[in-house]
Amino acid sequence: MTIEVIKLKLFIDKLFAKIKESESRICVGLDPHLHLIPDFIFEEVENKVDDSEKAKALAVLNFNKKIIDEISKYTAIVKPQIAFYEKMGLAGLKTLDKTIAYAKNKGLLVLLDAKRNDIGSTAQAYSEAYLKNKNIDAITINPYFGFDGIKPFLNYKDKGAFVLVRTSNESAVDVQDIESKDGKKIYEKIGDLVKDWGKDYLGKCGYSNLGAVIGATYPKELKDLRSLLPETFFLIPGYGAQGGGAEDVVHGFDEDGSGAIINSSRGIIFAYRNQKKYSEKDFDLAAGQAAKDMKEEINQALEKYYK
Amino acid sequence: MTIEVIKLKLFIDKLFAKIKESESRICVGLDPHLHLIPDFIFEEVENKVDDSEKAKALAVLNFNKKIIDEISKYTAIVKPQIAFYEKMGLAGLKTLDKTIAYAKNKGLLVLLDAKRNDIGSTAQAYSEAYLKNKNIDAITINPYFGFDGIKPFLNYKDKGAFVLVRTSNESAVDVQDIESKDGKKIYEKIGDLVKDWGKDYLGKCGYSNLGAVIGATYPKELKDLRSLLPETFFLIPGYGAQGGGAEDVVHGFDEDGSGAIINSSRGIIFAYRNQKKYSEKDFDLAAGQAAKDMKEEINQALEKYYK
Repeated sequence: MTIEVIKLKLFIDKLFAKIKESESRICVGLDPHLHLIPDFIFEEVENKVDDSEKAKALAVLNFNKKIIDEISKYTAIVKPQIAFYEKMGLAGLKTLDKTIAYAKNKGLLVLLDAKRNDIGSTAQAYSEAYLKNKNIDAITINPYFGFDGIKPFLNYKDKGAFVLVRTSNESAVDVQDIESKDGKKIYEKIGDLVKDWGKDYLGKCGYSNLGAVIGATYPKELKDLRSLLPETFFLIPGYGAQGGGAEDVVHGFDEDGSGAIINSSRGIIFAYRNQKKYSEKDFDLAAGQAAKDMKEEINQALEKYYK
Repeated sequence: MTIEVIKLKLFIDKLFAKIKESESRICVGLDPHLHLIPDFIFEEVENKVDDSEKAKALAVLNFNKKIIDEISKYTAIVKPQIAFYEKMGLAGLKTLDKTIAYAKNKGLLVLLDAKRNDIGSTAQAYSEAYLKNKNIDAITINPYFGFDGIKPFLNYKDKGAFVLVRTSNESAVDVQDIESKDGKKIYEKIGDLVKDWGKDYLGKCGYSNLGAVIGATYPKELKDLRSLLPETFFLIPGYGAQGGGAEDVVHGFDEDGSGAIINSSRGIIFAYRNQKKYSEKDFDLAAGQAAKDMKEEINQALEKYYK
């Protein structure tokens, strides 16, 4: 990271600058599904650690570090999903802490995918739990509590928050597609709220420090929301393993190709499982290649779309 | 807990039996706001632990244990709010683990207030993180992802989950009061979904293993939801410090006085701050007294209401 980037105050300006610097609009999700990590990673630590839980967590840390070494060449930001670390107990949360510090040290921005939510006093506690950590740059949050549950996260100007608007999963429609009296669906109403909640937190780049999560798996909704929310930066999950492609996500960007990052998790970090070119031992190189490919796919799709 | 209670398979039947046994419909929230804990608790540990973070976490554990010793006489269930422990880092999460084990050992049921939510594969990881812990009986979850994000929590029959329907905070209205095309508000639509999602998980007691969270601070909504959701057990937060009273929460119960537990957190565990009768040193006795009073207030209000 250049000194100039560090000097920028708002998170969203830091992210904007880092994307420009890296020429990459991707975000790599660090979701360590244990059964997808190569066996030899676990074997390497077995004799070093007695406790099986600690051994697992150490294996994940080693896996993450090698992944980060490779993908950091092609991405501006990583997104560890905290559930997979919570699942490993305290040893897992230590691994999360160390993973975050390692990524930060490699010059990456770190977005913690935690989807926290609660009443004001409790949301305040969550904001302190995560945004006071110097290595965490932003967090995902859930809008169900309304503004009380969002406000505490807005108080950290150098840190950002992304509010769930349209999630990438199949049953997103259960709640988010409920039609309201005025004809708008719930995800559009939440989009309106996010716009309103974030309007006083605009960065020099023109986007708000309060972003939105919009799934790549719903390209029509993505396109609609892009025009409804011109000042909202989008985190777009669901690329790759979940089914979203480059032609789907171009609609999430503004005409100058800014305003969004596209996340892929399993499709990048476990790329070795689908690529014959790489052996299990080279899982990290496979991840680097997948990140490079994704970065280029998106840049090319954007060039084509806006030419 | 009697052997008979342990034998019951579904969480909701265990909860039902435990309420009957204790004759108490209250739930005590263990939300350790650090600035509200008596100073002497921190002073007692200062010389024992070098690390200030660990000292804080140990003080909270000592506080919780003394609270649990007293309130366990008057409550069936406790609800630790995980945000306050996450805020204290790994030492805080150790304190949470030990608090949960201590409460369980005293015969209490433990409901973890975590409001987790995500796509299916990640919700699965959260369910494993918490419901596989033998000392945790139930968890709170958020409905925004639809059924994908709920389903993994239904697979643990001896464990329960409570879905946010109507939260207790002021800005709950921002999202939950959006009116849908058919005239129902969002919280009612979510109520309908919870009813549907939980309909195949009914216990012998007549209630589903999938419960709902409905704030005491919205008595009209509480009353409406009670008649809409006859098979859904309610967790009703917002009593006491947040403003809900006994006359508000009676509407959350069925005519036989079952179907709900009422939570108070600050109003019980920090009762010493409002009661002249008790000194700071007797904070635990003040909490016990407040739990006893709340238990009786609710039982009396119910008797009056349904006489």
